[in-house]
Amino acid sequence: MNKIEHIGIAVKSLRESNELFSKLFGKPHYKVEEVKSEGVNTSFFKVGENKIELLEATNNDSPIAKFIEKKGEGIHHIAFDVDDIESEIERLKKEGFKVLNETPKCGADNKLVAFIHPKSANGVLIELCQDIKK
Amino acid sequence: MNKIEHIGIAVKSLRESNELFSKLFGKPHYKVEEVKSEGVNTSFFKVGENKIELLEATNNDSPIAKFIEKKGEGIHHIAFDVDDIESEIERLKKEGFKVLNETPKCGADNKLVAFIHPKSANGVLIELCQDIKK
Repeated sequence: MNKIEHIGIAVKSLRESNELFSKLFGKPHYKVEEVKSEGVNTSFFKVGENKIELLEATNNDSPIAKFIEKKGEGIHHIAFDVDDIESEIERLKKEGFKVLNETPKCGADNKLVAFIHPKSANGVLIELCQDIKK
Repeated sequence: MNKIEHIGIAVKSLRESNELFSKLFGKPHYKVEEVKSEGVNTSFFKVGENKIELLEATNNDSPIAKFIEKKGEGIHHIAFDVDDIESEIERLKKEGFKVLNETPKCGADNKLVAFIHPKSANGVLIELCQDIKK
């Protein structure tokens, strides 16, 4: 794992939260992106070498809608940047982690992603992500 | 805000979680520290320019004991590194954030710290921290 790539935060309203986090960081988000497969609209802020990703559900079946219904707004996941997501999935499975996506899928921000179940990681939803080479 | 200084994760057993996160990162924690004023034992892992801080309660009145009782193990807070914590507290108060420590207090890792109430920050407990100059 090279570094924390981003922290994902579940929000009810991307518009209102973009304003809130702009005040927190003293600068606006630098992009928005819809990830249709996940049912989310996202926006990104840069802080040091990391990003903060705000996630708003676009439908009631979205994992973000379910998360907010259960736990309210708040930190949803931590994403770690890896060089080779497939070998990292294999390594973590051998270490006893429950990987939710044995085959990586396409996420926001031009990444291949896979999630680790929070039950196997101290209640933390962990995302592995690897840049898709162009 | 310069960067994310660390992410704090509430755990039941520092011993067990040190083992788990060592497997996740492929390297052990580099230090442990007790913060008596907060009723916590902490351990630190380095990932890129950030740290992961595991937090175990040392008594039932510890904020970490209460957090785990209410929400279970998981991400507890995000800490941002700032140059001048007092001016940052003033700035954020003016922006409408509820600052829990108007006067910064001593935290782990030789820092002055202050927290922002999650109700004013999208459900995210935010810590500001500044290195104590020696």
